[in-house]
Amino acid sequence: MRHIRVVGLDADDTLWHNETIFERMHERYRALLARYHDALTVDRTLLATETRNLELYGYGVKGFMLSSIETAIELSDGKISAGEIRTLIHLGREMLAHPVELLEGARETIASIAPSHRLLLITKGDLRDQQRKLAKSGLASHFEQIEIVAEKDSATYATILHRHGIVPEEFLMVGNSLKSDILPVLAIGGGAVHVPYHLQWAQDQTDALPDAPGRFFELASIRELPRLLRGES
Amino acid sequence: MRHIRVVGLDADDTLWHNETIFERMHERYRALLARYHDALTVDRTLLATETRNLELYGYGVKGFMLSSIETAIELSDGKISAGEIRTLIHLGREMLAHPVELLEGARETIASIAPSHRLLLITKGDLRDQQRKLAKSGLASHFEQIEIVAEKDSATYATILHRHGIVPEEFLMVGNSLKSDILPVLAIGGGAVHVPYHLQWAQDQTDALPDAPGRFFELASIRELPRLLRGES
Repeated sequence: MRHIRVVGLDADDTLWHNETIFERMHERYRALLARYHDALTVDRTLLATETRNLELYGYGVKGFMLSSIETAIELSDGKISAGEIRTLIHLGREMLAHPVELLEGARETIASIAPSHRLLLITKGDLRDQQRKLAKSGLASHFEQIEIVAEKDSATYATILHRHGIVPEEFLMVGNSLKSDILPVLAIGGGAVHVPYHLQWAQDQTDALPDAPGRFFELASIRELPRLLRGES
Repeated sequence: MRHIRVVGLDADDTLWHNETIFERMHERYRALLARYHDALTVDRTLLATETRNLELYGYGVKGFMLSSIETAIELSDGKISAGEIRTLIHLGREMLAHPVELLEGARETIASIAPSHRLLLITKGDLRDQQRKLAKSGLASHFEQIEIVAEKDSATYATILHRHGIVPEEFLMVGNSLKSDILPVLAIGGGAVHVPYHLQWAQDQTDALPDAPGRFFELASIRELPRLLRGES
């Protein structure tokens, strides 16, 4: 393990639960559309709409809400009622107002590494939604900076590191998504720690497996991060 | 005029047209709901919905789209059809895909001051939407940094200045909104230039008039900015 001075942390499904909240929304969405289509068709069509809209809407709950309304109209062949669309809006608003549930060990880990490392929160999604979640999390004071970005690719990470005067050799990114948190950071010479979440959003899935000895690590829990940083793993 | 090293520029209705695009959307919205309510009621109810949702949605087109759907359901007493809601989604998507129309003089002004000043773009709204507009504008290369923020208040400006190592005395913010671009910057000791746009979003209206001699300026056009920065005004 190289000497790491700056730790970047993903937020959704790394520090707090997110995909579980989407999954609960999906269940209610399938139920709402059950009289038009089976669950598999509903899921597949919603995912296709989300994928098609990603370039225009970007990540986050608001774009998801718009895609879920569009899909409901399409799948019901225009027969969905205004009242049901209002229900979809309410479901989305519940997601936005949802309490932040930290992952097991996240609070202690952040508190443990904050005195010895500069911490950056690096996340996609809606600006206000992510800021609100960070505020609710009680973790905000540990972070030097919150970076809410439109896309987590190598160029984005390079810009963030440059802006903060960080060399890649001193930077370690921690997150649950190989595609967004790991591969682009390894590509610019940084280190990366993959902590898988039990659910994964289809958009974030990748088959690529990192090959970067000494720079890539996989942990079962964020609890193991302080030990890794102390070079004891 | 003090010695200004860094110029912050608002984007919507300062560098490129935005409220005109919303205004066109409003016209089509009123037409769509004309059989339920008069234009005044439609405008007033939509504004009330937007205001109520601002805390949850933040600024930007996606939040506006969701508020416009919610309002249409409310004003039609649930009688609006799925097809009409699809039309609303299409109108919103048109706004997101709309070409960027620069304000008269914006391109020449930015090109003129960029060699002698550090330029920051400081704007509210949807992350991806604002990045897309900056890319389309052709002005991106002149800016050291784009700051897309959830709220333009004094705390936000103080954070941005601190992050970039800028003292308020060397900073000048240029924008069309007294509430978002001028008053919060004056409050932390910076300078501010108000360039009014011919339309103003109701949320951005304020009655307060700045009283900051030597730090506050009003220009009829962004074209006059280089002269002001040269201290010739």
